[in-house]
Amino acid sequence: MTARSAPPKGVTVIEGGSATTPRGFVAGAVYAGIKTAGKGKLDLGILASDRPASAAAMFTRNNVKGAAVVVSQGHVRNGSARGVVVNAGISNVANGAPGMRDAKEMCRLAAAALGVNDAELLVGSTGVIGHPLPMDRIRAGVPKIRLSAGGGPAFARAIMTTDTHPKTMAVRFRAAGREYRLGAVAKGVGMIHPDMATMFCFLTTDAAVEQRYLRGALKSAVDDSLNMISVDGDTSTSDTTAIFANGAAGGPEIGATHAGAAAFERALCYVCTAMAKMLARDGEGAEKLIEVRIEGAASERQARAAARTVTASPLVKTAVHGADPNWGRLMMAVGRSGARIDLARARAWLGDIMVYRGRPLPFDERAASDLLRNEEVLLRVDLGAGDASATAWGCDLTPEYVHINSDYTT
Amino acid sequence: MTARSAPPKGVTVIEGGSATTPRGFVAGAVYAGIKTAGKGKLDLGILASDRPASAAAMFTRNNVKGAAVVVSQGHVRNGSARGVVVNAGISNVANGAPGMRDAKEMCRLAAAALGVNDAELLVGSTGVIGHPLPMDRIRAGVPKIRLSAGGGPAFARAIMTTDTHPKTMAVRFRAAGREYRLGAVAKGVGMIHPDMATMFCFLTTDAAVEQRYLRGALKSAVDDSLNMISVDGDTSTSDTTAIFANGAAGGPEIGATHAGAAAFERALCYVCTAMAKMLARDGEGAEKLIEVRIEGAASERQARAAARTVTASPLVKTAVHGADPNWGRLMMAVGRSGARIDLARARAWLGDIMVYRGRPLPFDERAASDLLRNEEVLLRVDLGAGDASATAWGCDLTPEYVHINSDYTT
Repeated sequence: MTARSAPPKGVTVIEGGSATTPRGFVAGAVYAGIKTAGKGKLDLGILASDRPASAAAMFTRNNVKGAAVVVSQGHVRNGSARGVVVNAGISNVANGAPGMRDAKEMCRLAAAALGVNDAELLVGSTGVIGHPLPMDRIRAGVPKIRLSAGGGPAFARAIMTTDTHPKTMAVRFRAAGREYRLGAVAKGVGMIHPDMATMFCFLTTDAAVEQRYLRGALKSAVDDSLNMISVDGDTSTSDTTAIFANGAAGGPEIGATHAGAAAFERALCYVCTAMAKMLARDGEGAEKLIEVRIEGAASERQARAAARTVTASPLVKTAVHGADPNWGRLMMAVGRSGARIDLARARAWLGDIMVYRGRPLPFDERAASDLLRNEEVLLRVDLGAGDASATAWGCDLTPEYVHINSDYTT
Repeated sequence: MTARSAPPKGVTVIEGGSATTPRGFVAGAVYAGIKTAGKGKLDLGILASDRPASAAAMFTRNNVKGAAVVVSQGHVRNGSARGVVVNAGISNVANGAPGMRDAKEMCRLAAAALGVNDAELLVGSTGVIGHPLPMDRIRAGVPKIRLSAGGGPAFARAIMTTDTHPKTMAVRFRAAGREYRLGAVAKGVGMIHPDMATMFCFLTTDAAVEQRYLRGALKSAVDDSLNMISVDGDTSTSDTTAIFANGAAGGPEIGATHAGAAAFERALCYVCTAMAKMLARDGEGAEKLIEVRIEGAASERQARAAARTVTASPLVKTAVHGADPNWGRLMMAVGRSGARIDLARARAWLGDIMVYRGRPLPFDERAASDLLRNEEVLLRVDLGAGDASATAWGCDLTPEYVHINSDYTT
């Protein structure tokens, strides 16, 4: 799997790892009855550090924000938090003052279970918008959550909505002679076009990390990974990415001037990218992961816009779905992104087959179509306008996407 | 049909009207062999005035522009033109210098047939991107086009690509005591998210209209109509809207201070809106026309952004397709548009059923679902943030859209 391929130097994937693989983290989940019932279903979970942790988070830029987002923004502002309590099934968005009360009560219930302060917890809710949370079920459910260092995989299942499988991993990395672990868990395969972070991605590390540095490192990693995926161009009201660094591995705090900073950033970026690709690959109804590389852009901003526009184009997504080597749609999407393109110098590739170099090139359409039949499809354009580049990830658009989303609440 | 409902005062729809209903316009079309063959197919047409005409045009804002767009921009710059020659099947985009030569030759061929100068004609090409135009077939085809005042309907068929039916109409309007006619023809039901005009919409009128005033009147009408539709969020490389005013009805030139200016603008706006709705309703694979009205916005720009974002949201489009009264998606889409919304004062409706007023309202889900089963669906949001409003049109997203676009060139 590409998601796990080629970790950078000093980073090793831990087989079977999860968000509780880093030392000092516990998690657990129960079925509280928020999702419709089903065998082995979970819908309410807690992920937490057993000691105070540096924390940083990024949230949706959608002007309609879920109550959980608003509450979490307040709780993470001081740069420290223990963890997060999450429910799936109902997203607690556009519920007015009662919604805010419910989000705060979720923090309070989880804090009581952990024996910490309410304000040390973030909260997340994902699912249908505009329905009230069934607080009686959440009140009954939270005390039943059994927290353990083996609870990471259960937490990963509890936060799923239309995801077809849980998404979690962990890596080991060396920084300044010490070994640390970094874990992650994510969900969200629809309403995905993060403008800040993906729907949910929670990261844990047993490294001690300086707060302000942690914020910058998270932003930098997310901008090149979770903020570069698109399933359907729609931005959720609840997007939340948070990292908790509890220092359980010992050693001095990692900060900008620490000898291990670069190694930490490499590990963080690798894990964020791997999670981003897992999400895009599992896009609602999707059969393929599409990677779009833009080169030769006049600026990084233009490169990013072009890459994201291609991943969000229904015409590109359907062409990939149909293994149709219709590269004109790739040029159309790049063109409408606003990025400057010099058509006389531009080049374009489907996989490794060059199809345009200043003008259309003859190419083997059958071979190109075969490339588009792979589970991973690379589309690449050199805009011929400068030196900047960017990569984005998306998925194909299938009839199944329409089926899934035509019948959700009813 | 809504497209023809309720013309404004002084405007009357002419049954069976087309772009050649205004006096002094002729059109014709042939099958030149650019589209794959089929019974009664046409793919090459000319629409022209028998005398010089004031002309104004608007083109795609996509940075990748078709050669026909570039040539037409040059030819319309002086404010006068006779008409347009159009082929469907291949769009002549990204073809480099040979593409520019071909676009100019199309003008030359049509100008010779009409006995006018090359620079008096606009040109349009629509279809697959990146294939060369079969100029031998176009050279053979143009002289075979028989132009007549009854040729409007044939021209409407010749410019179709994935349209399921031709789109053309005409109205009669009175301005300052004189009767004029205004005709229109349009095509384009995919790659539709005009950022300037829709794929092709050509307007004809036998009114004499002052050039600079005509440009302003066209822009104003298009901004509220053709620039407010979306089928798939993708902006074509070939979008072109042009109007030709040949004065065949006699009378003084209509200009900003003419007593008939308001009547002309009403007629123009009505026809542009009717054509826009015809295009959206025939969106690839679409079964429903979606009208989105945004009120209470802080600015007109924000109102337009919110309305367009809703029409382009796959999650809204699939919910309408499934008659799913999942109004949370409406709020999500409004939220990600960047428009300011005051959730405490906002209101939302599915059809005439209010579902949100500061908080979710209880409503009859079955009745709402029934409303969403109509062929025309109204979605309405009051943002509670000001006094500006805007309306946009789109269509539902169906599995058929994916089928159509997964197999186009191959």
